[in-house]
Amino acid sequence: MANEYDLVVLGGGTAGYVSAIRASQLGMKVAIVEKEKLGGTCLHKGCIPTKSLLKSAEVFSYMKHADQYGIKPVEANYDFKEIRARKDEVVEKMYGGVQHLMKANKIDIYTGTGRILGPSIFSPQAGTISVEYSNGESELLVNKHVLICTGSTPRELPFLPFNHETVLSSDDMMTLDQLPKSMVIIGGGVIGLEFASLLADLEVEVTVVEAGSAIIPAEDKKISRILQKELEKKGIKFYIGESLSVDNVDHNAEGVTFKLSQEVSAEKVLVAIGRTPNSTDIGLSNTKIKVNNGFIEVNEYYQSEDRHIYAVGDVIGNLQLAHVATKEGTIAVEHMNDAAPIALDYNTVPKCIYTSPEVASIGMTEEQAKAAGFDTQIKAVPFAAIGKAVISGNSNGQAVLVKDKDSDEVLGLSMIGPNVTEIINEVALAKFMNASTLELGLTVHAHPSVSEVLMELGLASVGRAIHI
Amino acid sequence: MANEYDLVVLGGGTAGYVSAIRASQLGMKVAIVEKEKLGGTCLHKGCIPTKSLLKSAEVFSYMKHADQYGIKPVEANYDFKEIRARKDEVVEKMYGGVQHLMKANKIDIYTGTGRILGPSIFSPQAGTISVEYSNGESELLVNKHVLICTGSTPRELPFLPFNHETVLSSDDMMTLDQLPKSMVIIGGGVIGLEFASLLADLEVEVTVVEAGSAIIPAEDKKISRILQKELEKKGIKFYIGESLSVDNVDHNAEGVTFKLSQEVSAEKVLVAIGRTPNSTDIGLSNTKIKVNNGFIEVNEYYQSEDRHIYAVGDVIGNLQLAHVATKEGTIAVEHMNDAAPIALDYNTVPKCIYTSPEVASIGMTEEQAKAAGFDTQIKAVPFAAIGKAVISGNSNGQAVLVKDKDSDEVLGLSMIGPNVTEIINEVALAKFMNASTLELGLTVHAHPSVSEVLMELGLASVGRAIHI
Repeated sequence: MANEYDLVVLGGGTAGYVSAIRASQLGMKVAIVEKEKLGGTCLHKGCIPTKSLLKSAEVFSYMKHADQYGIKPVEANYDFKEIRARKDEVVEKMYGGVQHLMKANKIDIYTGTGRILGPSIFSPQAGTISVEYSNGESELLVNKHVLICTGSTPRELPFLPFNHETVLSSDDMMTLDQLPKSMVIIGGGVIGLEFASLLADLEVEVTVVEAGSAIIPAEDKKISRILQKELEKKGIKFYIGESLSVDNVDHNAEGVTFKLSQEVSAEKVLVAIGRTPNSTDIGLSNTKIKVNNGFIEVNEYYQSEDRHIYAVGDVIGNLQLAHVATKEGTIAVEHMNDAAPIALDYNTVPKCIYTSPEVASIGMTEEQAKAAGFDTQIKAVPFAAIGKAVISGNSNGQAVLVKDKDSDEVLGLSMIGPNVTEIINEVALAKFMNASTLELGLTVHAHPSVSEVLMELGLASVGRAIHI
Repeated sequence: MANEYDLVVLGGGTAGYVSAIRASQLGMKVAIVEKEKLGGTCLHKGCIPTKSLLKSAEVFSYMKHADQYGIKPVEANYDFKEIRARKDEVVEKMYGGVQHLMKANKIDIYTGTGRILGPSIFSPQAGTISVEYSNGESELLVNKHVLICTGSTPRELPFLPFNHETVLSSDDMMTLDQLPKSMVIIGGGVIGLEFASLLADLEVEVTVVEAGSAIIPAEDKKISRILQKELEKKGIKFYIGESLSVDNVDHNAEGVTFKLSQEVSAEKVLVAIGRTPNSTDIGLSNTKIKVNNGFIEVNEYYQSEDRHIYAVGDVIGNLQLAHVATKEGTIAVEHMNDAAPIALDYNTVPKCIYTSPEVASIGMTEEQAKAAGFDTQIKAVPFAAIGKAVISGNSNGQAVLVKDKDSDEVLGLSMIGPNVTEIINEVALAKFMNASTLELGLTVHAHPSVSEVLMELGLASVGRAIHI
């Protein structure tokens, strides 16, 4: 006999469980099919554990540089097992919370591999979910709607496949017992650089190899340059615009050697060149769903070609960020229930890089805005003008505003500096509320706070800057 | 011969210099009269130096509690002279910035004591400023407008006057060469508690004596209780509701002893019972200006009874905060120039306490909102539900939203937890933009960030909370 649901969510990552809660609030009977653990990549291998490691690295860094704050510096030491244990503890705590939420919201969890079936005696339309368990048994979940949020997995380099010993993925980084003495990180994007920053702070010798012409290429060029400079101060070496192939990689006794413009060796390699959508082996061939380069194609309410089957998160591409995936999932579920959701404007989404110093941005860079036909005006405020940033000991960065001259609208805002992954959220509200740059400037900001930079930018954009 | 100005600003503190810049932008010829240093209390004795000391204390605390982050703890040490030198360095850097801004904005600085004169041969109306220099010479500044921002000074206890050796003001704290072993702090308000927090983190034995029924009495009661509990964990002892008089204070060889419900002794005492407006000895008797309890009376555009003389900041009372004073000053200057400023709604002003953990709030508490006749709804989100707060190691606090049931408006919001002195600024924007609680909840917030608590509160207020 088959179990019946209003909604079956395929994949219990952050998008999956949040969407399931929203669906339950809207009166749906909901099941989640997850083959590993609820919380998915974000909770177990991504956002949360990496930020815990970064926090430990931050504390370690404070200890080494205590003299910058008038404290006697010390010989700081760590055993990576303890840093990892602390990370595992944070993850377990949040994982316990998610499990509790599932019960509180009466959501059924099926711990197995879910696949979509075609039309059958159970349902005239594709979408029935078959759940296979590790013991070989299986079960059918008949439903009115399916939400696919199967996420993504680290992408491999064809000539340097993950061996989980010397060639690692970001997933492998979560289970290391100790850190290597040296590491090459392939990929100067968000994931690669967050690891580079924390490893360097923990005194690993780090080299970053980036094939493109700059690190974090989607960000403002000036911000990218400042970040590279700040990371270089930690001792990280960069090889930019260097292409790798089977010919310049050599496994050997030391680990791995790369023949770049110079020869670079390291004990281990982290390959962080992006993430591949998990769209194979979930039964898409039994449906009308279209896939493009592995990503499921959807409309603005995340409906696939089979209109009752929705997909959100990393498996559809867009911005591969947990907060985007949860928002997409919420919108999808509200759309299933005719609850009139507002379609997501991706220009209102904050994007954060938790390196030290942090980077955060929203909307368009100057280049993107010009390409989109806007008549732009740029204003920058250095964090050296902001008292709280100077106090933090991290004031080399700046904030850059891209404004539409016609409408006085914030088209984009990029920052590198202290606490910017928090203060970017104020800009997200500003974007959502269609605040003008002047309104940002007229809002009373607490003194002293790093957020004052936003007020200063807003005022600067109308020729009323005070501190620059 | 007298110098002529459109505006003479009496007092070059933060309100004074910011207002002078705004006035210069509006085309006024501006002078500032300041007897000490530009930047005033905020830059030299208040906001900025205390936050530098707090930052050093934070770093020291991380070192002592490094094991909470998986790092080996160490015997941490400091020489207070170095912490103070770091503080002085931060202040000097920002002071240099202010001096540069004065030149860039062509503002004349008179370093002397300014007093307002009555009508004379120079001007038929009161307001001409006489500047007296330390060498006994003086000068007259004739003007069209005066802006009084003379600030405030630490209030004394009549039976325990400052002797700057054992009985200290917050000003005295700025010039200590070393910290005492023990300190009694009289006053459980913002200033007293910020010092209590930093001194306890720096291993001084701290006792706080508060005459009222709770610390930070203007804040939400639950937040006040949590703060007291967190500060007690640092070893701070509290005597609440204990009144002091000449009879229970005893100066002796150990320093000072107080006969409270128990006897409390300490090397030094910090008296932090509020600040007295600097309204005497500035010539107010030569004008029509009315003074109430020392505070200058003004209208909503900060005009005194002599309409061309304005007053802002600590000398008028309201909220004694630097960002309030600068906003008031800006409004005053715009009003002088018929530039149609928006009057300040004090319910949009963030209020911060930089203790560890931090406290921040905006608008009304539940009690205040009810007293104002609102039909309120309260929602609280514990920081234990917010991943980034758990990662920070500081998740015992919570955020409390006071909402108007009729309009869905944020009447007030109070928080105790990590980084709340930054994230309160998003709420300031929400208040300024008249955002509804749902709009706060629908804004995409970066994951993981502490600011997600605001989204969660917004959603909770309409029955759509995800993580609680």
